[in-house]
Amino acid sequence: MRMYDIIQKKRDGLELTDAEIEFAVEGYVRGGVPDYQMSALLMAVYFRGMTPREIKTLTLTMMRSGETVDLSAFGDLTVDKHSTGGVGDKTTLIVAPIVACLGGVVAKMSGRGLGHTGGTVDKLEAIPGFRTEMDRGDFLRQVREIGVAVVGQSGHLAPADKKIYALRDVTATVESIPLIASSIMSKKLASGAKNIVLDVKVGSGAFMKTREDAERLARAMVGIGTLSSRRVTAVLTNMDIPLGRAVGNSLEVLEAVDVLAGRGPADLVEVCSELAARMLCLARGWAYEESIEKVRDALASGAALEKFRGWIARQGGDASFIESPEKLGTAPVTWELKAEEGGYISSMDAERIGKAAAVLGAGREKAGDPIDYTAGIVLLGKTGDEVREGGTLATLYTSKKEKIPEAAVFLRDAIRISPQKPAPQPLIFGVVE
Amino acid sequence: MRMYDIIQKKRDGLELTDAEIEFAVEGYVRGGVPDYQMSALLMAVYFRGMTPREIKTLTLTMMRSGETVDLSAFGDLTVDKHSTGGVGDKTTLIVAPIVACLGGVVAKMSGRGLGHTGGTVDKLEAIPGFRTEMDRGDFLRQVREIGVAVVGQSGHLAPADKKIYALRDVTATVESIPLIASSIMSKKLASGAKNIVLDVKVGSGAFMKTREDAERLARAMVGIGTLSSRRVTAVLTNMDIPLGRAVGNSLEVLEAVDVLAGRGPADLVEVCSELAARMLCLARGWAYEESIEKVRDALASGAALEKFRGWIARQGGDASFIESPEKLGTAPVTWELKAEEGGYISSMDAERIGKAAAVLGAGREKAGDPIDYTAGIVLLGKTGDEVREGGTLATLYTSKKEKIPEAAVFLRDAIRISPQKPAPQPLIFGVVE
Repeated sequence: MRMYDIIQKKRDGLELTDAEIEFAVEGYVRGGVPDYQMSALLMAVYFRGMTPREIKTLTLTMMRSGETVDLSAFGDLTVDKHSTGGVGDKTTLIVAPIVACLGGVVAKMSGRGLGHTGGTVDKLEAIPGFRTEMDRGDFLRQVREIGVAVVGQSGHLAPADKKIYALRDVTATVESIPLIASSIMSKKLASGAKNIVLDVKVGSGAFMKTREDAERLARAMVGIGTLSSRRVTAVLTNMDIPLGRAVGNSLEVLEAVDVLAGRGPADLVEVCSELAARMLCLARGWAYEESIEKVRDALASGAALEKFRGWIARQGGDASFIESPEKLGTAPVTWELKAEEGGYISSMDAERIGKAAAVLGAGREKAGDPIDYTAGIVLLGKTGDEVREGGTLATLYTSKKEKIPEAAVFLRDAIRISPQKPAPQPLIFGVVE
Repeated sequence: MRMYDIIQKKRDGLELTDAEIEFAVEGYVRGGVPDYQMSALLMAVYFRGMTPREIKTLTLTMMRSGETVDLSAFGDLTVDKHSTGGVGDKTTLIVAPIVACLGGVVAKMSGRGLGHTGGTVDKLEAIPGFRTEMDRGDFLRQVREIGVAVVGQSGHLAPADKKIYALRDVTATVESIPLIASSIMSKKLASGAKNIVLDVKVGSGAFMKTREDAERLARAMVGIGTLSSRRVTAVLTNMDIPLGRAVGNSLEVLEAVDVLAGRGPADLVEVCSELAARMLCLARGWAYEESIEKVRDALASGAALEKFRGWIARQGGDASFIESPEKLGTAPVTWELKAEEGGYISSMDAERIGKAAAVLGAGREKAGDPIDYTAGIVLLGKTGDEVREGGTLATLYTSKKEKIPEAAVFLRDAIRISPQKPAPQPLIFGVVE
């Protein structure tokens, strides 16, 4: 078998065999296949696509390249969740304790943020004392005892994906549905959960800019699950507007607490409830109506918040910030962005809002950069809200006063005001399962 | 400027600027652009194509990466010829002296053969004493004195093309019209001739398998010439059948002499006359009818053969082989391929015939391999000829008796016999100028 023939075959639109995909991926990881051949193959895949079987084989080959987590002791109760990037996405912090307090098992590995999107691990580390690294034994023990654990993603998970992603990142081959789907799913399958709920974000702040692309990605990922004996549901959610009002690590942790305490912003409550309900449908075998009812009860009763408190404490975090938010620290500088005209907020660009937050210190430019956990933005108005001239649109938090003008430019550019009230947008576009 | 953005732009079907093409090619040659990014760009070009302006810029950038030959002292009289590969193609040996004896100036660099196609330089080196390397001063002096010189292609000509071609060769990006056109033309432009005639071969033995592809390639190359102040004519010729009857270095040299002496096979005479006439149209400004008439006269009068003799001698070759062919040496083993049935030769696969000759020792598997100049094949029948059962189809020449069975398999597979006489095929499909 020769890599040349594999590239040529894909280039000509033919379907690769399992053996050919394994040859390419395993050869690339071991070094026998040079990067210039792999990048040519990836570009051919970009143009020619892959069949569901090819995508499944690619996913499983990348999964098998590294460690896998064995969660079989938990039977069908394990459920993972993955969001395809987004701005102000603190859903894991909310859905994990909801699902765990209703009997689902959430043994989760999360990533760090890069660019304009913050990672769940970064948000959790904004809580003093919270440990995102633990050994396999401690991790499984915690999951057994309290039904939830979230740790940083192991570098040994799907190393083939890591190596291929790094190459895609410099060869303009990231934006390919089969490659995105297999990259996400290789790590999800390696993480061991029997059930997986995917939050596929659509819109300006998301990786998938159109609903059509998001549906194609969702179908590809659900297809991989079906072919690999996992149960997968994908929820298509609106990312034209950031989720909730807070963007920035500590600010988002506090907003998550608000939701768990039954006082969160409506959009965030709705999306988290939907995701948690879908997770429980799979993990508990409940009907959707039963699931969503139980999720609402868990939020109203305080059961989800108590599970959150126990989880934070179990991973070494000081949970007293729940009652005393100032314990997360506060940014030394705040600044208010005022509306230059009155009217209605007609659109928001979530990606630009994310960039503004990153400029203030909430994000990273490159891996390893430090993060200012207290930096970020709280949006006082969201799309559809009425604003008066001179009214506050957003509050900016930072330690670097000099960054405010640059952040304000991004932010002002991201918030459009018009005389007419815009048509309301759905938060959830649909479900693929 | 970033290579990533250039790849993405081409991937998305947009036209690259001159500066972007120069950045990519020059960066790749200098090492700043890694091979995995260049191969991704080449694959994107494979799928998206290039505009005439992009192709011209790519060609000129590759041309400028190395030496260029200044033939401006010869004014508009200089004319080069290039064949896009083929089997049994000895046309340069024939057209160069024809054109030179009629006042055109042929200062030519040719390549060596690889795989099933033999190179002009290899054929010339089959002549004892013939030197294919000489310094620039000697080369130009010879051109000035006798109007013709053919040397091996300098390694310093268009090194960017050499480096990019090597990458294309291992990443399945060879078969791209813009990349083929710019590769050929970068070397032709660097070689300095004002006028260029391209012999674009079509058919089983050629790189372009269909007439449509050949026309696209021809138009791309003529377009580059027009945009670069050169005059370019492309002739589309039939390579479903090998040209002439001889395949193999010494055998082809002798066949070239046959043509120059007025006794060559009709197909080879026709194609060479056409190419020489087109070269003279450009170099001398003659009308086509005048050119073709003068070419016929030069063959009939012996003027072309005398020019050939002078040229061979001037480059150190022993021209006495013209009268004493045995001086080129003879293969120790000959073997005749007999027809297993009677009928008409309905088709020939020139590529397989070329492979058979290579097996006998006439070709190379990899650069630097030695060549057996006396090895090869003489085809006694060609497409359309009647054959009787047991009649000789071809004579095989080799020093390696043990290779005959393998060569015979290729050859028998290449020659199809059927009861019906096939429709005659045109030798020349058309001209693009």
